[in-house]
Amino acid sequence: MTTLPTPDILRPASYVYGTWHAGADGQTLVDAVYGRPVAVISSEGVDFGEALRYGREVGGPAIRRLTFHARARALKALASYLLERKEDYYTLNLLTGATRRDGWVDIEGGIGTLFSYASMARRDLPDERFLPEGQVERLGKGGTFVGRHLLVPREGVAVQINAYNFPVWGMLEKLAQAFVGGMPSFVKPAPQTAYLTERVVRDIIASGLLPEGALQLVTGEPGDLLDHLEEQDLVAFTGSAATAAKLKVHPTIVARNVPFNTEADSLNASVLGLTVQPGDPEFALYVKEVAREITSKAGQKCTAIRRAIVPRDRVEEVVEALRRELGKVTLGDPARDDVRMGALVSTGQRERVQGTLDALKAETSVVIGGEERELLGGDREKGAFLDPTVLLCESPLTARGPHELEAFGPVATLLPYDTLEDAARLARMGRGSLVGSIVTFDRTEATELVLGLSSTHGRLLVLNRENAGESTGHGSPLPQLKHGGPGRAGSGEELAGLSGVRHHMNKVAVQADPTTLTAVTREYVPGAQVREDVVHPFRKTFEELQVGDSLLTPRRTVTEADVMAFAGLSGDRFYAHTDEIGARESLFGRRVAHGYFVLSAAAGLFVDPGVGPVLANYGLENLRFTEPVGFGDTIRARLTVQSKTAKDPRPSEPATGVVKWRVDVTNQNEVLVATYSILTLVAREVGETHA
Amino acid sequence: MTTLPTPDILRPASYVYGTWHAGADGQTLVDAVYGRPVAVISSEGVDFGEALRYGREVGGPAIRRLTFHARARALKALASYLLERKEDYYTLNLLTGATRRDGWVDIEGGIGTLFSYASMARRDLPDERFLPEGQVERLGKGGTFVGRHLLVPREGVAVQINAYNFPVWGMLEKLAQAFVGGMPSFVKPAPQTAYLTERVVRDIIASGLLPEGALQLVTGEPGDLLDHLEEQDLVAFTGSAATAAKLKVHPTIVARNVPFNTEADSLNASVLGLTVQPGDPEFALYVKEVAREITSKAGQKCTAIRRAIVPRDRVEEVVEALRRELGKVTLGDPARDDVRMGALVSTGQRERVQGTLDALKAETSVVIGGEERELLGGDREKGAFLDPTVLLCESPLTARGPHELEAFGPVATLLPYDTLEDAARLARMGRGSLVGSIVTFDRTEATELVLGLSSTHGRLLVLNRENAGESTGHGSPLPQLKHGGPGRAGSGEELAGLSGVRHHMNKVAVQADPTTLTAVTREYVPGAQVREDVVHPFRKTFEELQVGDSLLTPRRTVTEADVMAFAGLSGDRFYAHTDEIGARESLFGRRVAHGYFVLSAAAGLFVDPGVGPVLANYGLENLRFTEPVGFGDTIRARLTVQSKTAKDPRPSEPATGVVKWRVDVTNQNEVLVATYSILTLVAREVGETHA
Repeated sequence: MTTLPTPDILRPASYVYGTWHAGADGQTLVDAVYGRPVAVISSEGVDFGEALRYGREVGGPAIRRLTFHARARALKALASYLLERKEDYYTLNLLTGATRRDGWVDIEGGIGTLFSYASMARRDLPDERFLPEGQVERLGKGGTFVGRHLLVPREGVAVQINAYNFPVWGMLEKLAQAFVGGMPSFVKPAPQTAYLTERVVRDIIASGLLPEGALQLVTGEPGDLLDHLEEQDLVAFTGSAATAAKLKVHPTIVARNVPFNTEADSLNASVLGLTVQPGDPEFALYVKEVAREITSKAGQKCTAIRRAIVPRDRVEEVVEALRRELGKVTLGDPARDDVRMGALVSTGQRERVQGTLDALKAETSVVIGGEERELLGGDREKGAFLDPTVLLCESPLTARGPHELEAFGPVATLLPYDTLEDAARLARMGRGSLVGSIVTFDRTEATELVLGLSSTHGRLLVLNRENAGESTGHGSPLPQLKHGGPGRAGSGEELAGLSGVRHHMNKVAVQADPTTLTAVTREYVPGAQVREDVVHPFRKTFEELQVGDSLLTPRRTVTEADVMAFAGLSGDRFYAHTDEIGARESLFGRRVAHGYFVLSAAAGLFVDPGVGPVLANYGLENLRFTEPVGFGDTIRARLTVQSKTAKDPRPSEPATGVVKWRVDVTNQNEVLVATYSILTLVAREVGETHA
Repeated sequence: MTTLPTPDILRPASYVYGTWHAGADGQTLVDAVYGRPVAVISSEGVDFGEALRYGREVGGPAIRRLTFHARARALKALASYLLERKEDYYTLNLLTGATRRDGWVDIEGGIGTLFSYASMARRDLPDERFLPEGQVERLGKGGTFVGRHLLVPREGVAVQINAYNFPVWGMLEKLAQAFVGGMPSFVKPAPQTAYLTERVVRDIIASGLLPEGALQLVTGEPGDLLDHLEEQDLVAFTGSAATAAKLKVHPTIVARNVPFNTEADSLNASVLGLTVQPGDPEFALYVKEVAREITSKAGQKCTAIRRAIVPRDRVEEVVEALRRELGKVTLGDPARDDVRMGALVSTGQRERVQGTLDALKAETSVVIGGEERELLGGDREKGAFLDPTVLLCESPLTARGPHELEAFGPVATLLPYDTLEDAARLARMGRGSLVGSIVTFDRTEATELVLGLSSTHGRLLVLNRENAGESTGHGSPLPQLKHGGPGRAGSGEELAGLSGVRHHMNKVAVQADPTTLTAVTREYVPGAQVREDVVHPFRKTFEELQVGDSLLTPRRTVTEADVMAFAGLSGDRFYAHTDEIGARESLFGRRVAHGYFVLSAAAGLFVDPGVGPVLANYGLENLRFTEPVGFGDTIRARLTVQSKTAKDPRPSEPATGVVKWRVDVTNQNEVLVATYSILTLVAREVGETHA
C-alpha cells in the first residue's frame, strides 16, 4: 500500500531581483496527514522595496517589449514545460492533505489555464503591444475629430497574494493574466502550501521561457511589501474576507489608489428545483454535486457548496441520498488508492472549522456526520482529518448563522424552502457569492432562479440531464468565464476571459484627427489619409501591405438586366427586387438591386483575379446597406487596409497573415451605399515556420 | 449694466422617501461675487437609513421594471424638460461665481449628457432588463454545455457624492448612468453650490418623468449615510483625493465590499511638441488652449491644465504669447457681458489656492500675474476673485511641488523640457491624471507621446490644425469616452460610453445547456432546440416571431455553370473560382464557388419572395466561410430567429423591429460551409406611433 512520502525537510526559497534567496530558520511546516515536519520557510533578508523596483524596472519593460502574441507563445511553451514535470507537483500535493484527484484541479487545471490564456490571447488580441478597444467614436460632424479607447499595460508590479488551497492554479491563473496584460508578477503564496508553489516557480525560472523579472516569489512573511507599492502597481488577493478587509485599507494602498482585487470565500448555494422528483435524473445529479462539493479538497474550496437549498418536502429524501453518497467516502492518507478524501491543510485549520461548526449548531442540527469514521492511513491526532458533516436548518429565512458563518471544510447546511421566491431569497441572504447552482430540467423554473440570483452571484450553473455529461461542475471556475462575486465574495473579478487581462492594463481615451489616430492605433480610421499606388494591393505580400493602403475602383452602372440575372442565378426573387407593384409600396418605393448583388459587384470591381499573395476571403464583418441601389445607379468601391495580424505559422502550411480591409461602396452622388470589412488570408514573405 | 441678482435667501431642501424635507437653520452660504447671503442649507432630521431603504425597496424595483429602452425614453424626455427651464439654472449659476459660458458646460453640457446616454442606450443596448454580453462560450466538445455573461442591475442604491464645480453636470452624468443601469440615485452635492443642484432636482421631481424613488437628494451634511450602506449599494465620488482617501476606508464600505469609484483632481499636463515652430497653427492653438484652461471656470476644473510642458527653447515665446492672451481676460461680476472670468466659489477656496500658490513658489517663479488687475464689478474683499497666474519651474525633473501641489484655481506652471522622453517623463510625474494633451502636427511625435503617456492618463487629446475646428478641448470629458484616470486621479472611471452604465450592474457568468441559456438570455444559442412551423418565418410579424423560430430550406446543388455565371455577372474572376491551373495550387486545390455566391444562393433558398412583414435586409454580421463549396456540392441553409429588438416608432413611419437571424449553411455531409447573422427590419402589428 502506497503511503505518504517523507522527503528531506524542504527549504523553499524566495526568488527576488534575479536570485534565489534562502531565508534563515523560520516557520516549520508539517504535513497534513501525519504531522511530520516537511519544510521550513522564511523571507528574512528579502528587500521588498528593491524587489518591487526590480519588477518595475527590469520585468515590466521586458514583458512590454513582447507583443500579445509573443507573450501567448511564451505561456504556451511554459505550459508544455510544466506539464512534463507534473509528477513532481503531485508528490508534494499529497503532503498538503489533498488526493491526486484534488491535485488534478490544482496542477493540471492550473497548467490548463496557461494554455487557455495563450489561446485566448492569440484569438482575441492583436499582435501588438497595446489593445485598441471598441469602435471609433466620431466626435464632430465634419469627421476631423474622432476618439477611441486604447488599453496599455500598467507600468508597475502585480502583487499576487494567494490562498493555501490552490498553490499551483492560484499562482498560474494570476500569472497568466498579468503576463498577457504586460505586467510582472510578485507572488506571495500562503505559507501552508508555499513549498509546492516554490517547486513550480523553480521550474518556471529554470525554463528561461519568461523574461527575467517577469516573476518573483516570496516564501514566508511579506514584511513591509505593501509599504513600497506605487500608483502603477496593483494587488490581486485571494483569501478570507477578514484578511482582505485588513489589507485593502493599508495606508499606501489607499493613498496611492492601488487597485485591490479581492476574491474571497463565500457561502455559495445550490438550489434543487421545485419541479424535480426523486426519480428524475436531476435529483441524482443534485445529490452527487452536493456530496462532491463537500468532499473534494476536503471542502477547502472558496466555491464549495455551503448551503443546499431544497424543497421542504424533499429534505428527507435528500438527506437519505446524501447519507448513502457520503457513506462511500473513504477518509485517510491521500497517497493510498482506496482513499477518496484526504485531510485539511493543517490541524489549526481543523480547529477553526470545528469552532465554526460548533457555532453553526446553535441554529442547526447535525443530520449526517458527528461520529468518526475509520481512517485509512494518516494520524487522527497529528493529521488534520475531519469527517464530512451535513447540518439542517429548519428556519433558514430567520436564521443568521448558515448565511454568515463559513466552515471552510467538509461541511454544508441544508436549507428547506417552500416557494421559488423563497429559494432565491435564501440564496441572496449569503450577501454575495462566487457561484450558485440550480438543478432542474424545467426551463421556466431555471430562468426564474437565474434572474433571481443574478445580482448577487458571479457565476451560476444550471445543471440538468442535457449538460451533465459535459458540465465542469458547481465548484470549477473556467478561464473563459468570470470568477469572483459581489459583496461578501469580495466584489472582485478574476478570469472572465480577457477581462482579467484588461484589469492589468490602463484604459485611455485618445482623441485626435483620423490620420493621427490611425498612426497611433495602427488600425485605419475612416477619414484618415490613404496611400494609393500603381500596384494593386492584391499583388502585395502581407509585409508589403501597410495600414491605409487603398484602391479606388472603376465604376459600374447597375442595370435592370443585372438585377434580373442575379435574381435568376441566386433564386432570390424578393418582391423589392422583382415585383414592380409590391416594390412601389415598399420602403424603397421602387425596385432596387439585391444587397448581395452590390456586395458581389463590389468584389468584381476590387478583386485582382490573378494568382497572387491574397489567398482567400474567409469572412466579412459589420456590413450595413446604408442606401438602396436603383437601376441606373453607378457604384464604385474603395478598398483600404484596415489592420494586419500575422498568424503563427504551422508546420507544413505556408506562412500567412490576416489582412482586414474596409470596403466603402458609393454611388454616383458620392453617397455611401454599403460599408463593411472583409477578412483575407495573405501570404507572408517569410518561408520559415517555427513551432 | 447687468449685475448679479440678489434673490431672497434660498432654502434648498432635501428630497427623501418621497417628500421634500426642509432642514432647520444650518450653514449660510454667500454668493461668490459680493459675499452676500444667498442660501441656508441643513439636512437636520433626515433619516439616512430610511432614505437608503426607500431607494432599495421603492426606487430600485420601479426602475428595474423598465427596459433599457424605456429608461432611455424617460431620460430623453427629462432632458427636453430641463432644457426648457435652463434660464432658471443660468441665473443661479452666476451666484456661484461662474460666467454664462462657464455655466454652459455645466448646464447644457449636463443636459446634453442625458441626451447622449439616451441615444447610446437605444443604440447599443437591447430592449430588455438585462444585458447579455460577449459571445457564447462553448464549454464542452459536444456542445451541450455553454456559457455566457449577463449584466443585471445591482439591487442597491447609487450614492453619488459630487463636487462643487459642476453642480448640474456632475449630478446628471451620474444619474444618467445609474438610471440606465437600473439603479436609483441618492445625490449628495457639495454644500457651496447645492442650491443650484436642488433647483434642478425640484424640476426633475416635478416632471414626474422618473419613477418615484429613482432620485433622492440630501442638501447639507451627509450624517450617518455611509453607516447604512449594504453590499448591493455603491458609491460614486467626485472631489479631492484627500476626501476620497478618508471616505473609502469607512468601515461599512470596507466590511461590505461596497464599490467606491473615485474621480479626483489631478495635475494634468499639456505638451507642446518639439517640432512646433512659433509660426505654426499649433503654436497658437497651444497658447489658446492653456489660457482657456487657466481661466474657464476660474481654473476650478479637475481636468484643467496645471502643467504646461514646453520645449526649453520655446519657453520665452510661450510666456510672451500667454501674457498677451491672458491680458485680454477681464475679471469681475460674471453677470456683466464684458467680464470673461468670474470668481472662485468662495473666499475660503481662494485662501486655499493662495496657500498652494505660496508653497509652489519655493520651486518656481511667477512669470505672469502677481499684480491685481482691474475688477469689473464684484467685491475684491468679499468676492472670491483671483488673477490668472503662470509660474515657471526651471528644473522640473527634480522639482516636486509642480507635480504634487494642486492650486485649484487660475494657476498653471510651465515646465521646460529638452527631449520627447523627458516630456513624457514629466507628464508621468503627475502620478496619474484625468487628461493630458499633446499639441503637434507631427504624427510620429504624437504617436511617441501618446504611447509614453498612456499608462498614466485616462484621456489624451492630440490637437492640431486638422481637428482644431471640431475639437472639444483639453478640459471637456465626453459621454462616449472615459473620464477618470489612474493613480492620483482616483483609479476610477466615469462616462466612457456604456462602461459607466455597466459599473451599476453585476456581471454573472451563466453556464447551462443551450436551450436553457436561450430561455434565460432570450437570444438564440447555437445547439438549442428550435421551433419549426408550416408558416414561413418571413410571413410572421415582429410580434409573432419568437426567438428559436427556424426554417430548414430545400437543397441546391452548386454547379460549374452557376459559378461561371456568377463570375460573369459579378465581374469577380478570382483565380480560385475560374482558373483551373491557379486553383490547383491554391489553398483549396481545385476551383470552388465564390463565397458571395454561397451567400446569395442561401438567400435564394430562405427568402420568401412575396410582400410580407419582412421589409428589408439591411445588414450582416460575423460571416465566416468555414469550408469551400466545390462544383457538385449540395447546400442548404437553416434560418433561425436569434434576437428581436423593437424600434422606437417615428412619426409618419411604420412601426418596425429589428430581427436578427442566424444563418447556417451546410453541405451534403452536414458540414458547415458558412455561418453568419443577418439583420432585417420587420413590421410590427401596432399601428400607433408615440413620440
